[in-house]
Amino acid sequence: MGKTAITPTRAENFPEWYQQVVKASDIAETSDVRGCMVIKPWGFGIWENLKSELDKRIKASGVENAYFPLFIPLSYLEKEAKHVDGFAKECAVVTHHRLEEKDGKLIPTGKLQEPLIVRPTSETIIGESFSKWVKSYRDLPLRINQWANVVRWEMRPRLFLRTAEFLWQEGHTVHENLEDAMLQVEDALRIYKEVVEEILAVPVIIGEKSEAERFPGAVKTYSLEAMMQDGKALQAGTSHYLGTNFSEAANIKFLNKEGEHVLAHTTSWGVSTRLIGALIMTHSDDDGLRLPPKIAPKQAVILPVIPKENQREKVLEYANLVNEKLSKTNIRFTTDNRDIRGGDKKWQWIKKGIPLMIEVGPRDVESNNVMIARRDTGEKIKVSIDDIQTTCEKLLEEIQNNYFNQAKSNLESNTIKNISNLEEFKDYFSKNTGFVQAPWSEDEKEIEKILKPLKITVRCLPRGLKPEGNCIFTSKPAKSVAIFAKAY
Amino acid sequence: MGKTAITPTRAENFPEWYQQVVKASDIAETSDVRGCMVIKPWGFGIWENLKSELDKRIKASGVENAYFPLFIPLSYLEKEAKHVDGFAKECAVVTHHRLEEKDGKLIPTGKLQEPLIVRPTSETIIGESFSKWVKSYRDLPLRINQWANVVRWEMRPRLFLRTAEFLWQEGHTVHENLEDAMLQVEDALRIYKEVVEEILAVPVIIGEKSEAERFPGAVKTYSLEAMMQDGKALQAGTSHYLGTNFSEAANIKFLNKEGEHVLAHTTSWGVSTRLIGALIMTHSDDDGLRLPPKIAPKQAVILPVIPKENQREKVLEYANLVNEKLSKTNIRFTTDNRDIRGGDKKWQWIKKGIPLMIEVGPRDVESNNVMIARRDTGEKIKVSIDDIQTTCEKLLEEIQNNYFNQAKSNLESNTIKNISNLEEFKDYFSKNTGFVQAPWSEDEKEIEKILKPLKITVRCLPRGLKPEGNCIFTSKPAKSVAIFAKAY
Repeated sequence: MGKTAITPTRAENFPEWYQQVVKASDIAETSDVRGCMVIKPWGFGIWENLKSELDKRIKASGVENAYFPLFIPLSYLEKEAKHVDGFAKECAVVTHHRLEEKDGKLIPTGKLQEPLIVRPTSETIIGESFSKWVKSYRDLPLRINQWANVVRWEMRPRLFLRTAEFLWQEGHTVHENLEDAMLQVEDALRIYKEVVEEILAVPVIIGEKSEAERFPGAVKTYSLEAMMQDGKALQAGTSHYLGTNFSEAANIKFLNKEGEHVLAHTTSWGVSTRLIGALIMTHSDDDGLRLPPKIAPKQAVILPVIPKENQREKVLEYANLVNEKLSKTNIRFTTDNRDIRGGDKKWQWIKKGIPLMIEVGPRDVESNNVMIARRDTGEKIKVSIDDIQTTCEKLLEEIQNNYFNQAKSNLESNTIKNISNLEEFKDYFSKNTGFVQAPWSEDEKEIEKILKPLKITVRCLPRGLKPEGNCIFTSKPAKSVAIFAKAY
Repeated sequence: MGKTAITPTRAENFPEWYQQVVKASDIAETSDVRGCMVIKPWGFGIWENLKSELDKRIKASGVENAYFPLFIPLSYLEKEAKHVDGFAKECAVVTHHRLEEKDGKLIPTGKLQEPLIVRPTSETIIGESFSKWVKSYRDLPLRINQWANVVRWEMRPRLFLRTAEFLWQEGHTVHENLEDAMLQVEDALRIYKEVVEEILAVPVIIGEKSEAERFPGAVKTYSLEAMMQDGKALQAGTSHYLGTNFSEAANIKFLNKEGEHVLAHTTSWGVSTRLIGALIMTHSDDDGLRLPPKIAPKQAVILPVIPKENQREKVLEYANLVNEKLSKTNIRFTTDNRDIRGGDKKWQWIKKGIPLMIEVGPRDVESNNVMIARRDTGEKIKVSIDDIQTTCEKLLEEIQNNYFNQAKSNLESNTIKNISNLEEFKDYFSKNTGFVQAPWSEDEKEIEKILKPLKITVRCLPRGLKPEGNCIFTSKPAKSVAIFAKAY
């Protein structure tokens, strides 16, 4: 073939390749509304599968779904000073509640006494409800999740990665003490890791965020960090222990077993449509999207191939037989009978990343076979129609594992652990992207000076790692091992 | 008993009873944000079931889900003059995109060049995308559905019935011609009727809206009208044929088979969280919510009754056995082991409307029975533990049918068909609420003068009815049969 479906290739221009994959796979597009995207059916199908996988695990863990207002009164944001500081700068502000017509134009009128903010996250508004719901230790733990749209005005929007409006899930819980709250923080991380690794096939590193990278107002923030094919990090989800900071702001107090009114400990945790960006940049290639079967809206497409009109009936009848056989499995599939050129049709599905294409032509009818093409390897396999079910199931499993292993191998081979001083560090990042894992003194002021000009950040302090040797930047005793990388 | 759990009763004060049922069943509450509600877990569980029942039918009909921006540029609304006229008056207007701190206060800054409206409905913004997606008749029909939050500033909000923000589903489709579009309008009505009647157990009348009651910009609007227990009508869903009005505004044109660029025909259709209001006012009684089993988040609750501490172990073990048996069915159930007074616990579940309560006490352990209480009749039934599965399944089916039949009987007995002139009409509504079904000349001007002071509206022109005799208001020849009622 030689030519790739996507121009430019990853090697030529990764950011532009990303935009072109999004376009070619028909999953989303920009809208005329600054920073807001349109998620098209194939992209929304990915989100629906992701949502359903997360939702069933969140529910199974005992957390209940609820829904809170889109708007937050300005005064709520003012209550939690640290939170505002980090968050509330760029957001959509509602100031009027009416439109009046004047000379064919619509003019905003009905000025609100207090402006409303379109939620950038819901700690403050949910906290208001929680303060009413929580009275005694008997009401705890209170564990709520919300599926919602949120808005953070973005100056440089990029589809899925950074959009003004995005879709997400935000968990908010209230606990008697730190220990209970931390169990919840961990439980969210467990669920995220399971879904991101097993469903999206994206390997992640879990660790605590350094002080400078914490969620505004949080006592501890943990994140899942994934590595994209260009070696940059993408934060795939976060889980925060908020201590009593938000409880104090929203007055979430309860009567404990000792009969005292005390502040509750809260947590929050979320993942968003950003994960679709991670999915694309982890697996896709120069021919377009590649979807792990467990997340793909459709896992297989049946493509009837009709070279001559008089073969149509025979081929379609046979395609129906294939359809019937697949209907008896749990495989999500479709038949593409559109009247367009076969080659174009195939390329559309390749660019959409469908795991399996099942071609059915006149020769297959004669020989009682089908031709199955794998998206991961490009391999074509001739299979007897009697074996189609078991073969497809086996191939889907293989593809899922294959994508995960490829990504895992990328992560491992681009995580460098033998950098021993600042010079080597700078040298590495002048030639490569990737993760540098190194001992660190946790000196926040010092590190900012070093990393900022390099556009590198502390991604996380991976758990379970003990530092060996001194900090590579300050030569002071290392407090932890940290991962340093460029990030999305 | 004598005393009811809800004060006031339906007979005493229906609107206040409604608010108290919402509160007592713990499904929702008002928030400090004007007109916005908090949907609590039990209420959100109802919405999730409703959403899932609708979603699977919408998908099975070939419509695909997608997602469009929350914000609509003001200029989009100005394009469709009729639509604006009916809609855009009361809405949330975003005018700024930044907050700046000044003396501990947050001040909106970053004025937008063009204000953005929080979507009150999405015809205009979705039309913008459709105009790009539709090029040829081969791209049609284009059938998209969106699950979203929408905002219409409400001056007199009431939980579920009329809230500033609400959740809904909005279908938007594009077709080659009127005939195809009308098939879609019908298909939406078919899905709505099926879900509202079979799942919510709320009987509905489908009919066309009169001109004055049409959706702004629509050529034809059809609605499902339900009757609440107080005899008032509630619009349970709408489906609109928009002709080429919105296509013209958004420039949705396609190359037809004859090679001409022509305007497409569009439809839109939606149902919202308002249906939960209909559900409550159709079925609930003076003891609280009553939920049809098919929509109930939980269909049964196991209540261990432990009069003495030394019976605890034995009872809980037996409750576990019941749990195991129900786990083998598709029944959605929970066990309530909370350490609160048994009587309080029972009343909480009654007020929440759970279809079946399964009590398990020391005597039941001895006799190998359980005591099942039905929420619809209040009846208590002693059942051998071996029969629990089949009995519960049978009872749930009976309760579902029972609620539908009670509502159907209320609808039929309060639909009056023998009114023959204005005087009788006025007389009826001075003493009753309910539906008056009568021949009508479709004289819009005349009817407005008559109905407005009576606070009555034309609900719909039910399909399949031929008028007999003249219009009861104008004595002119009747063009149709209409239903007149007070409405929510």
